[in-house]
Amino acid sequence: MLGGVNVRAGIVVTGTEVLSGRIADQNGPWVSQRLLELGVDVAHITVCGDRPEDLAAQLRFLAGERVSLIVTTGGLGPTADDLTVETVADFCGRPLHVDPQLEARIGEIVARWQRARGTGGLDPEATRAGTRKQALVPEGAQSIPPVGTAPGVAIPAVADADAPVPAILILPGPPRELQGMWDGALAADPVAAAIAGRTEHRQETIRAFGLPESELAATLRAIERQIPGFDDLEITTCLRRGEVEIVTRFPATAADSYTSLAQALLSHHDTQIFSTDGATIDDQIAGLLQGRLIATAESCTGGLIAARLTDRPGSSDYVLGGAVPYANSVKSGVLDVPDTMIAEFGAVSEPVAAAMAEGALARFGADTAVSTSGVAGPGGGSPEKPVGTVCFGVAIAGRETLTRTLHLPGDRAAVRERSVTVSLHLLARELRRLG
Amino acid sequence: MLGGVNVRAGIVVTGTEVLSGRIADQNGPWVSQRLLELGVDVAHITVCGDRPEDLAAQLRFLAGERVSLIVTTGGLGPTADDLTVETVADFCGRPLHVDPQLEARIGEIVARWQRARGTGGLDPEATRAGTRKQALVPEGAQSIPPVGTAPGVAIPAVADADAPVPAILILPGPPRELQGMWDGALAADPVAAAIAGRTEHRQETIRAFGLPESELAATLRAIERQIPGFDDLEITTCLRRGEVEIVTRFPATAADSYTSLAQALLSHHDTQIFSTDGATIDDQIAGLLQGRLIATAESCTGGLIAARLTDRPGSSDYVLGGAVPYANSVKSGVLDVPDTMIAEFGAVSEPVAAAMAEGALARFGADTAVSTSGVAGPGGGSPEKPVGTVCFGVAIAGRETLTRTLHLPGDRAAVRERSVTVSLHLLARELRRLG
Repeated sequence: MLGGVNVRAGIVVTGTEVLSGRIADQNGPWVSQRLLELGVDVAHITVCGDRPEDLAAQLRFLAGERVSLIVTTGGLGPTADDLTVETVADFCGRPLHVDPQLEARIGEIVARWQRARGTGGLDPEATRAGTRKQALVPEGAQSIPPVGTAPGVAIPAVADADAPVPAILILPGPPRELQGMWDGALAADPVAAAIAGRTEHRQETIRAFGLPESELAATLRAIERQIPGFDDLEITTCLRRGEVEIVTRFPATAADSYTSLAQALLSHHDTQIFSTDGATIDDQIAGLLQGRLIATAESCTGGLIAARLTDRPGSSDYVLGGAVPYANSVKSGVLDVPDTMIAEFGAVSEPVAAAMAEGALARFGADTAVSTSGVAGPGGGSPEKPVGTVCFGVAIAGRETLTRTLHLPGDRAAVRERSVTVSLHLLARELRRLG
Repeated sequence: MLGGVNVRAGIVVTGTEVLSGRIADQNGPWVSQRLLELGVDVAHITVCGDRPEDLAAQLRFLAGERVSLIVTTGGLGPTADDLTVETVADFCGRPLHVDPQLEARIGEIVARWQRARGTGGLDPEATRAGTRKQALVPEGAQSIPPVGTAPGVAIPAVADADAPVPAILILPGPPRELQGMWDGALAADPVAAAIAGRTEHRQETIRAFGLPESELAATLRAIERQIPGFDDLEITTCLRRGEVEIVTRFPATAADSYTSLAQALLSHHDTQIFSTDGATIDDQIAGLLQGRLIATAESCTGGLIAARLTDRPGSSDYVLGGAVPYANSVKSGVLDVPDTMIAEFGAVSEPVAAAMAEGALARFGADTAVSTSGVAGPGGGSPEKPVGTVCFGVAIAGRETLTRTLHLPGDRAAVRERSVTVSLHLLARELRRLG
């Protein structure tokens, strides 16, 4: 796609719980991002259940599509229904052998786990069988040291002109194990050889808030013809939590085109673009809050802002805490919002949002506070304040408190999530004005 | 897999942002769950980017796997890089025609949107071209009324013995639109015909807390031979937020086998199984809190418990609110935890967790409160209180406050999320004892 021929890969995610939609797959997106960073194009992600014939069909499909590398995730457990290694080995026509050293190593890990959990007596025969199964390595393949109990496997490509077999990298399903084994997997000869021919790409991210996708599309259409080498830029735009993320991948040779693109976007959408270096609003808030102390006062967001702020290691440096004054009695009792104010303007109003933020400043001894009060729905709307009406407050010690009212689209979860994003952006704007 | 031949389907998710791992796909899992509920087996989910040749390859693959129905999601926008309808029509060998009625209808919707957003003047020619594009329908196909601007398309299967073409249902990418169009899609003749031969299955869910997956696996191995018809039960177990979910699909004829399975599981894991009717812990908590008033006091969970409780419409009936006393000054200042207690036992201690919960009772005027104080990491651990140490409190007016200390595995996000689950289960157990 970009810069001529490139190394293409496919990802196979195994697991009935993913195929059936009961759990969201984390591995496909993670592996895809890592491969793209390396300059490998991901052509296909496929998901299959625990049926070996479906897994085999997906391997045949990807090999037929002439990908250079297949990465499989999951199906490496000790039990009989975990069949990835057997199925892949069969697909490659490589017999399986137990690696005695690996078997001993897995045995030690399992024994240590069982001691730690006090489950040592549990079915020792099944444990031995499971360990032996996990130590099976296809002929000619390289084993990748486990993080949990399941080692990975890297199988070299076979360059047959009629029916080439791509290199196959087999990784376990638990995301922590898979991610911990990634560097080891890349170092394995079969994988290194498969991606050797890749073209390194750069990837840059621009983030905007309050920019409709249609407006961005119009801008892109307008500047397309003005930028030499525009076609070398692979631009993906994506709406996410009320923000637009503009991700551009390009070969090093198109760096000037990218610079022109970024400048053009900035000149059209200066007020909406808040980040050109990949930093998220959370990153920026964390920077802006250094040396300050923040408290939150959340009604409709119910704790989501505090949770988002404290999601970050080290946030205790600047987060004092927050209140979730869901009931009006708590707005007045804990945050000193006057009952008369609530009676006069309603709980969802700018005066109340301001009083909540100012109450948080005072009660928590903070110098910065943010507040929300809104109708998240589905009930509680009125003609004057329909579902989606949310009032925001940002209080900074020694300054006038900022308030805003917005009408946010979507269901309860969407209104709440969007409210968090809005409050972070209002907060960031106010803090930037201090600088 | 179950009960002989069944109707199999494949799902194709399109979109570079999904393929590249930048956004998590919601449509594949959602469609998969709906199809499974209908008794349709989902054999494959595939993800492709915006390259029509990759989409065509996935369609060929699924047709070759002899699925009866393909559902595609995404790629129905008005712009030129949205190519799903064109690519599918080409795959089916069906020419495209503009449906004038549909064009008029989409035109009205777009005009209404533009008026509402005040973007009416924006590039009317591009708008017209986009509308015309979205009104393209393959010959012999049925259009599915849009929820947004993009109509769906249902194309009938072609029963060619050598190269059968499955029925193909094309749906838009925005989850709200896709979900809103689902019932209409099922009613379309090509879809109804494709899934007519399905075997209806029942699906039942049992949920347990504090049950290691290995122990459950051992139980299943032990009872396998004792239950007649065990093989007719398709059992999937899945660890999720510290809970184990045991989902069983089975044909109506295997109902007795399922009853035996459920009884056997209950007799082995009575204390750990908390739900056999599909109800989540959130459902149960909502029921148990009717007539009560709860407040939260969260340190390490930073607002996640309050957010989870208020995620539910109608939660204002029983949620008064909460405090996030992240800093010690807030624990004492807002929740009246004695400074001397924090100095003596440390903030992460059962006495402090108890005092936080009791402080929340008093300050919020609640009759029920739950608290957390822990070391979420990565910093802040000590030999006595390593990362993952979390203290919990449950205070109920008129009863002795319950406290617990647990050591939870995983990174910061995992410790926080697991802490929420634990606190909900502790709360539910205490509330059940009242009943």
